[in-house]
Amino acid sequence: MGPDTAPAAAGRLHLVPVPISAEPGPLDAVLPAGTVATARAAHYFLAENARSARAFLKAIGHPQPIAQLRIVQIGHDPEDALVDQWLAPLRPAAGATPQDGVLVSEAGCPGIADPGANIVARAHALGIPVVPWVGPSAIVLALMGAGMNGQAFRFLGYLPQDRGALQARLQQVQADAWHGETQIFIETPYRSARLFESLLQHCDRALRLCVAADLTGSAPLLRTCTIGQWQAQATAAWPPLDRRPAVFLLHGTPAPAGRRWR
Amino acid sequence: MGPDTAPAAAGRLHLVPVPISAEPGPLDAVLPAGTVATARAAHYFLAENARSARAFLKAIGHPQPIAQLRIVQIGHDPEDALVDQWLAPLRPAAGATPQDGVLVSEAGCPGIADPGANIVARAHALGIPVVPWVGPSAIVLALMGAGMNGQAFRFLGYLPQDRGALQARLQQVQADAWHGETQIFIETPYRSARLFESLLQHCDRALRLCVAADLTGSAPLLRTCTIGQWQAQATAAWPPLDRRPAVFLLHGTPAPAGRRWR
Repeated sequence: MGPDTAPAAAGRLHLVPVPISAEPGPLDAVLPAGTVATARAAHYFLAENARSARAFLKAIGHPQPIAQLRIVQIGHDPEDALVDQWLAPLRPAAGATPQDGVLVSEAGCPGIADPGANIVARAHALGIPVVPWVGPSAIVLALMGAGMNGQAFRFLGYLPQDRGALQARLQQVQADAWHGETQIFIETPYRSARLFESLLQHCDRALRLCVAADLTGSAPLLRTCTIGQWQAQATAAWPPLDRRPAVFLLHGTPAPAGRRWR
Repeated sequence: MGPDTAPAAAGRLHLVPVPISAEPGPLDAVLPAGTVATARAAHYFLAENARSARAFLKAIGHPQPIAQLRIVQIGHDPEDALVDQWLAPLRPAAGATPQDGVLVSEAGCPGIADPGANIVARAHALGIPVVPWVGPSAIVLALMGAGMNGQAFRFLGYLPQDRGALQARLQQVQADAWHGETQIFIETPYRSARLFESLLQHCDRALRLCVAADLTGSAPLLRTCTIGQWQAQATAAWPPLDRRPAVFLLHGTPAPAGRRWR
C-alpha cells in the first residue's frame, strides 16, 4: 500500500481538567502549562457545559476566535446514542483528516465524579487514543490533605438524601471506615451544611471526619477532627459550608505510617 | 495582648506532588507553576527519599544551594514516634519563627498510595494548616482515562502475591466490579506482567480491564478491553508491562452516562 492510500491515523481524545474554584485565581496555580497548551491547540471540544467551556478557552487565551471553535455540549448525562456522532471527527474517514478532540468538565477532571466515562469507553472501543492530562480534582486534593489512609480508599459519590436511608447507609460506611479504608463522598452546595450536621449526629465519636471545600480557592477549608471533637466545638466554629460544594472523608483508625498498609 | 506577645502563627505543611514518569519530560507538562513555586520558596522538606527530593529541587531550579536546604528523609514507613520532631520547625516556639514545610514523595502525590498520611494527620491535630497542591497521580490519570465509572470507585492498593490468595481476592473484586464500582489496584515493576496474566486467567470474559503505565511519559500505555478481547490477542500484542509499574482497573458494566449514577 503506498503512502497515498494509507489510512489516516485516528485523532486523539484529550481529557483536560479545568479549575475547580468558583473564584479561580491565576490559572497556572492549578494547571500545568502542558494541559493548557493542549486545550489551546485544539479546535474541537466536547464540553459538559458549552458556556463554561467558552469562558475557560477565553481565560487561557485560545489563539482562535472562540466563535470559530467547534464546541459540542454533552451535558450532565451524555446520551450513549450520540457518542459515535461526537467522536466521528476523530476517526479516519474518506476525504477528511481526523482531528484531535478535547473533553472538558464544568470543573475538575473529566470522568471523575463528572460525566464523560461513556465517551472515553467508546473511544477505547473505536481505537481512538485517549490522553489524560494533569489538573485539579477536589476529591484527590481532599484525600491528599485529609491525613487519612491513601493506600485503600473508596469514593461513594453522593449519599442518600432521605434521612432514614442516609442513616442506614452510614452504618455500612462507618463499618468500612473502621476497617481502615478511607470513605469519601461529596455533597452539593445547598445540602453540604445539612450533611455535616447529620454526620455529627449519626457517626461514632472516635471516627475521624475531614471536611474540605474550595481547596484551590481564596478561602480554602480543610480540617480533620474526630466526630467528638467536632461535636464539642461551638456551632459558630463549625466549618463555613453554607452554599459550598464539599468533600467529606471518614476514617476509623490512626493513619497508617507505611506504604503496604493493606 | 500586645503584638509583641502574640504567639507566632504556625507554619504551613504543603503537600507537593512530583513527576511520576521514570523519564520525565519538561516539568511544566505535569506540574502547575503554583506547585513549583511552592517548592522553590521552601527551605524545609520532609521527603520519602532525600536523594530524589534533591534531584527534584535541582530540576525546578531551587534558588538556594541544595546543600543549604534542610531535607529530612521520612522513608517508606515514616515512624509515628518521629512525626512531632519532624513537624517541630512548623510550630510556634519561643525564640524561633515557625517555617513552612513541604512534604514530597518519590513520585506522584504525597499520601496517595504513598507515605505521609500520619504526618498530615498529626499536622491537623497540632493545628498546622495543611495545603495540598495540584500534580500528577498515576491512579487518578488512569481512572480518568479508563472510561470506567468515576462516580463510584475503590482503590485497593496491592493485591496479594500468593496465587491462591490472589484468586480468592479476585472473586470479591470481580463481584464489586460487576456491581458497577470501578476497582483500581497497582503492581510493582517486576510483578505487573505476571499480574496481567493472572487477571486474564481468573477474571470473567465480559469484565472490562484497563491497563495503564507511564501516563505522562514518552511511551504511555492506556488501553481498555474486555478480558475476552485481551485473551484473544496474540501475546506479542499484549501491553508492554515488563519492569513497568502499572495501574489496573476492572469494571463490569458499560460506563454510566450520567452524573448521579449511584
